[in-house]
Amino acid sequence: MVPVVSAQQPVASTLLGFSAGNAKNELDLEKRFLAIPDPERMRVSMQLLSARPHHVGSPYDKQNAEWILAQYKQWGWDAHIETFQVLFPTPKTRVVEMGAFRAKLQEPAVASDPTSNQRDEQLPSYNAYSPDGDVTAPLIYVNYGLAEDYEQLARYGISVKGAIVIARYGHSWRGIKPKLAAEHGAIGCIIYSDPADDGYTYDDVFPKGPMRPSEGVQRGSVLDAPLYPGDPLTPGIGATADAKRLKREDAQSLAKIPVLPISYGDAQPLLAALQGPVAPENWRGALPLTYRIGPTAEKVHLELAFNWDLKPVYDVIATMRGSEEPDVWILRANHHDGWVNGADDPISGQVALLEEARAIGQLAASGWKPKRTIIYCSWDGEEPMLLGSTEWAEQHAEELREHAAVYINSDGNERGYLSAQGSHSLEPLVNEVARGIADPETKASVWQRLQAYELLHGTADERKDAASRSDLRIGALGSGSDFAAFLDHLGIASLDLGYSGEDDEGVYHSIYDDFYWYTHFADTTFVYGRALAQTNGTLVLRMAESDLLPYDFAALADTLHVYATEVKALLETLRTEAKERQAALSLNAYVLTNDPKHPMVAPPSLETPPFLNFAPLDNALASLDKASGDYAKARSDASGKALFSASLKALNAQLTQAERQLTSPQGLPRRPWMEHLIYAPGWYTGYGAKTLPGIREAIEERRYADADAQIVLVAQAIENEARFVELLTGELKAVARQ
Amino acid sequence: MVPVVSAQQPVASTLLGFSAGNAKNELDLEKRFLAIPDPERMRVSMQLLSARPHHVGSPYDKQNAEWILAQYKQWGWDAHIETFQVLFPTPKTRVVEMGAFRAKLQEPAVASDPTSNQRDEQLPSYNAYSPDGDVTAPLIYVNYGLAEDYEQLARYGISVKGAIVIARYGHSWRGIKPKLAAEHGAIGCIIYSDPADDGYTYDDVFPKGPMRPSEGVQRGSVLDAPLYPGDPLTPGIGATADAKRLKREDAQSLAKIPVLPISYGDAQPLLAALQGPVAPENWRGALPLTYRIGPTAEKVHLELAFNWDLKPVYDVIATMRGSEEPDVWILRANHHDGWVNGADDPISGQVALLEEARAIGQLAASGWKPKRTIIYCSWDGEEPMLLGSTEWAEQHAEELREHAAVYINSDGNERGYLSAQGSHSLEPLVNEVARGIADPETKASVWQRLQAYELLHGTADERKDAASRSDLRIGALGSGSDFAAFLDHLGIASLDLGYSGEDDEGVYHSIYDDFYWYTHFADTTFVYGRALAQTNGTLVLRMAESDLLPYDFAALADTLHVYATEVKALLETLRTEAKERQAALSLNAYVLTNDPKHPMVAPPSLETPPFLNFAPLDNALASLDKASGDYAKARSDASGKALFSASLKALNAQLTQAERQLTSPQGLPRRPWMEHLIYAPGWYTGYGAKTLPGIREAIEERRYADADAQIVLVAQAIENEARFVELLTGELKAVARQ
Repeated sequence: MVPVVSAQQPVASTLLGFSAGNAKNELDLEKRFLAIPDPERMRVSMQLLSARPHHVGSPYDKQNAEWILAQYKQWGWDAHIETFQVLFPTPKTRVVEMGAFRAKLQEPAVASDPTSNQRDEQLPSYNAYSPDGDVTAPLIYVNYGLAEDYEQLARYGISVKGAIVIARYGHSWRGIKPKLAAEHGAIGCIIYSDPADDGYTYDDVFPKGPMRPSEGVQRGSVLDAPLYPGDPLTPGIGATADAKRLKREDAQSLAKIPVLPISYGDAQPLLAALQGPVAPENWRGALPLTYRIGPTAEKVHLELAFNWDLKPVYDVIATMRGSEEPDVWILRANHHDGWVNGADDPISGQVALLEEARAIGQLAASGWKPKRTIIYCSWDGEEPMLLGSTEWAEQHAEELREHAAVYINSDGNERGYLSAQGSHSLEPLVNEVARGIADPETKASVWQRLQAYELLHGTADERKDAASRSDLRIGALGSGSDFAAFLDHLGIASLDLGYSGEDDEGVYHSIYDDFYWYTHFADTTFVYGRALAQTNGTLVLRMAESDLLPYDFAALADTLHVYATEVKALLETLRTEAKERQAALSLNAYVLTNDPKHPMVAPPSLETPPFLNFAPLDNALASLDKASGDYAKARSDASGKALFSASLKALNAQLTQAERQLTSPQGLPRRPWMEHLIYAPGWYTGYGAKTLPGIREAIEERRYADADAQIVLVAQAIENEARFVELLTGELKAVARQ
Repeated sequence: MVPVVSAQQPVASTLLGFSAGNAKNELDLEKRFLAIPDPERMRVSMQLLSARPHHVGSPYDKQNAEWILAQYKQWGWDAHIETFQVLFPTPKTRVVEMGAFRAKLQEPAVASDPTSNQRDEQLPSYNAYSPDGDVTAPLIYVNYGLAEDYEQLARYGISVKGAIVIARYGHSWRGIKPKLAAEHGAIGCIIYSDPADDGYTYDDVFPKGPMRPSEGVQRGSVLDAPLYPGDPLTPGIGATADAKRLKREDAQSLAKIPVLPISYGDAQPLLAALQGPVAPENWRGALPLTYRIGPTAEKVHLELAFNWDLKPVYDVIATMRGSEEPDVWILRANHHDGWVNGADDPISGQVALLEEARAIGQLAASGWKPKRTIIYCSWDGEEPMLLGSTEWAEQHAEELREHAAVYINSDGNERGYLSAQGSHSLEPLVNEVARGIADPETKASVWQRLQAYELLHGTADERKDAASRSDLRIGALGSGSDFAAFLDHLGIASLDLGYSGEDDEGVYHSIYDDFYWYTHFADTTFVYGRALAQTNGTLVLRMAESDLLPYDFAALADTLHVYATEVKALLETLRTEAKERQAALSLNAYVLTNDPKHPMVAPPSLETPPFLNFAPLDNALASLDKASGDYAKARSDASGKALFSASLKALNAQLTQAERQLTSPQGLPRRPWMEHLIYAPGWYTGYGAKTLPGIREAIEERRYADADAQIVLVAQAIENEARFVELLTGELKAVARQ
């Protein structure tokens, strides 16, 4: 067996953005930093922060914010709480019934789990930002409630118009389910957790195992995040007490039909009552019944009413001012609010963040000062839809656009593999840092472990890249955590990092996501909490201390080529599909394969896509290839001459603006709040990222004229980026000549 | 919508093997034939033949044989019953228990189903040819019990040595499960029917729907069919009363360890008691529990004992002697024995066969005589493992080898699509016939319907072929019905045809496969029974009446090219796998991805396959390409000159021998009974065909020296075929010159 190579700090002479001398100092600093984060402190902090329900508006949420504030202050940070007033509905009435059956809608306490019995403080299970409603209609099963599921329904000749749909959780962000249901004419939506998705199919259910028990419910927001996250009444501006607010009826991000999550215990009688065709194979879950599409013979009654109050969110902001480049800001954040006790989500990430802040505070106490300004943020109100982070980002948009060099996010954290997504100009930095962090279980670097994972479990492309590429690729960011406002709205280079992949979890957004669960079934010794603190803290220090900010535009260009290839391939796929569909229709294949006992409707013919003009995109990429190559050479020359110096200050200030070139103030089609032209949450996927979203979604939705127009806009942004990078190259060369 | 084109009889001028004049007569004859098969008669016959259990050795099995004999005789056939004495064990003792749990092993009667309560006559649920045994050991779950499942088990570090395994039915012929379990050291085997495979996952269970109810059990043989089917005591010879028999302990085809099938009702407590690792995703069935690999903490007790008696099988053989070429035999068959009442399997096929025989009898009564000899066979003893057909084929081997032109088989029949497998020299004939048979549901031809199915649901290759190739491909035959002795042992060109694909079935080999089930959930109006009779009857008439036997060697050559490409690709796949495995091992990827809470063992490194010498195969194919092209041209020339005549008699006698050229008297490695070098049941798949089996299985099992040797043998057979076809071409040209 080949011996495992332990994680090693990088070689000083090659540290991205550092002269050899400064790199040596940096690595000494990091060595001190890496030794500080303490698993035992994380355990203690988690137990405290998750001791009681701490959702938006709860007493314990405020108490946690104040405790966190005190910690930052104690560690020497300049910290304060910033408060916003946000619309946050909580349930008054929740009814699901059919004939004699009435859903329980209640997660029972578990004797062995000491925090599961705090019923008075627990938020009932619900989907935040569902409208009030009282609807009675037959029920229809729509699988995961995705666009392709409705295409499938049409094949069965079944419409959800006037019906209540029941969808299962998974395969999309939950808010997509009522959104698509409403677009198809449904008047209500029930979402349940099938045991095939996070129940007994995977492992024993809680408390014997980590999976979702029969009465467990996934709470969650259904605010239309792909349109805009944050307070629905104050898009684009901070929800301060005196902010100008939309009327609730004008807020476009609210869900359109009443929607409620239920357990599979409550769902089983409803699913068993469905009649009509047997559901297709990939619609079938793990309950012991024949899944049918419906409708039910009896009607289902769904009644929901909410308190539509404004509630305060408490963002804790801790700043350590930079000694040399104070106007360049390094942001690092994790939220602190939970749906109930929220130990895994978000406290497992919050306690890692706090250990980083303590460690950096300790370094500062010993005399070191960061070169640039470091800002640690503990957000409130992430769960209802990124409220605390978005309102703060909108409130401080102008200064953030001017000063922010990077936003580094985390959220829940478990055992497993480094998961890193974000701006691709940071991909080499992430790889460099990951090569130096020790994986707690194998002692190899977390980079080596991730490479091994991709070699064995990746797609064909990932396997090839993992075997041959010097850096592992990082993913693109969609939505689902607090980076959205920074990346999508403000165009700040962003990252989201965490460890995951070894712990199955079925308590997400339930009362069982608590200290007992986390310390029995997840990172029980908090060693992956320490790894997360080490990873993100090192990134913060590398960004704060480098001579030249360590962006790499060749990595960006390389990734953009991948995306361009993908959207071209997508168009070809649609062309092939249209051709095959036409061939099948012209041979009458759908009529000929119809089973009269199980009749199906032929699908419509598909428009054959036109050829699109990708030339502007290809030309822009060629420009960026050249610019990023020139920049890399200039950086290498400057680095080789050891000429990095204080004269880089102006250049670094400009470098922070590189990511901003990829945005457009007019934003994406249908959603002007989303200004980044490379990354966005998918209009019909939610959390899932769409890259080159203007082009890709136009092609997916067969809006080909829009696609052609978007190619031009995206190409323009990439040309802007290329010109900007050439400008930086010129300045870098000038500095090197000094 | 494009109008459906109705099925049409072929154009006389192009009918394969007919001069234009004779084609006209043939089509007139077929028109009369097609009108005769009567769904109502099939219903009445099915009700009678399935009225009581009719397994081998039962009174009703004999009674059915006698009734069938009387029918043939009444319709003017020269019919008799031929009897063999075969080893057929029946259960004395069946025990499965674990602690206080004891399996019921009993299928309950259903009130609405009038034949389900004939308990005194029903064979208990069991696997025929399991040895007697009394074993007590921990239980381990092995998924479907395939070779890859044992590779997976090794990754978990779990051995079945000394254990009892529980496997689920499906994804292989059942006999492979105890065979592989024994090879891996298990001492007992339980097979159960998971609801994910034929239970409530697909539709409601019987009697509300067609699927397997909680206590339903699949009986079935576990005789080692890939080694040799038929009576285990008389391999290679007919099991006449005075045949020389092996001692039971010397019979190699008997299962090696005790094996019993159970219901999922009986399986659930056993599966719930499994401990150890959670089973991998594709091992999980549809029971509401966490599937684990095991072992169980408590031991399972499996005790089985059988009556090892010789029982009679009654083959009904009906002959209509040919008027011009009586020594060329056209064989057509379906079995009549069932596991219990057996309505679908086999009576749905038997009643179609009988309607063909009645129709041909009626044509003969009106003065027509077949040109060649037609032999209809109603086999007994198919269920225990093709006993009646195999013993008859072995008993008459010499005359069959000399006279048989084709063997056309059917078995159970339902609604849906024509399924045709067999010798590829018959592919054009099957296509021609299928183009003229009307599909009962769509009125299009069954060919058009099958094309539509392949266009929509085929693999990429099938979709391409269905859109572009003039003929649809027919599949290759493995085992699982009575064609095996004719094709695999004797090298007679064979076909197996049936309709299926629209009726889900969960009563296979249970007491619920009866008239009530069939007339509620399958081809309830017997119109697909009529279609089967029309299809096979037309094939029989076309083979019996053609001027020149309608084989096509170009179709054979084309198919052999596909197989050659497949075995080459298989070798390349193994090479790629070995390289990727080596890369992963050298990067320590298995160690690095090991989860200490769920440890896995790294797989072994894989030998990189050598390059094999495929040149002899390619050269042989080139010879056959040329020979088959020459033959096609000669046939076309002769046909064009309308010179088909009685002088073709000698040529036809020779043509019957063309398939025999593809056999070798030494047979396949490990199994000399299997003489066909192109088609065989897979050693580790059972019913599933392996084409070019000597080459393919040697590569799969990494016996590369064997593969090189087998390439030479197969190439020799193909060269023989090519030379034989050139010889036929010469004779055909000589006939045309006369």
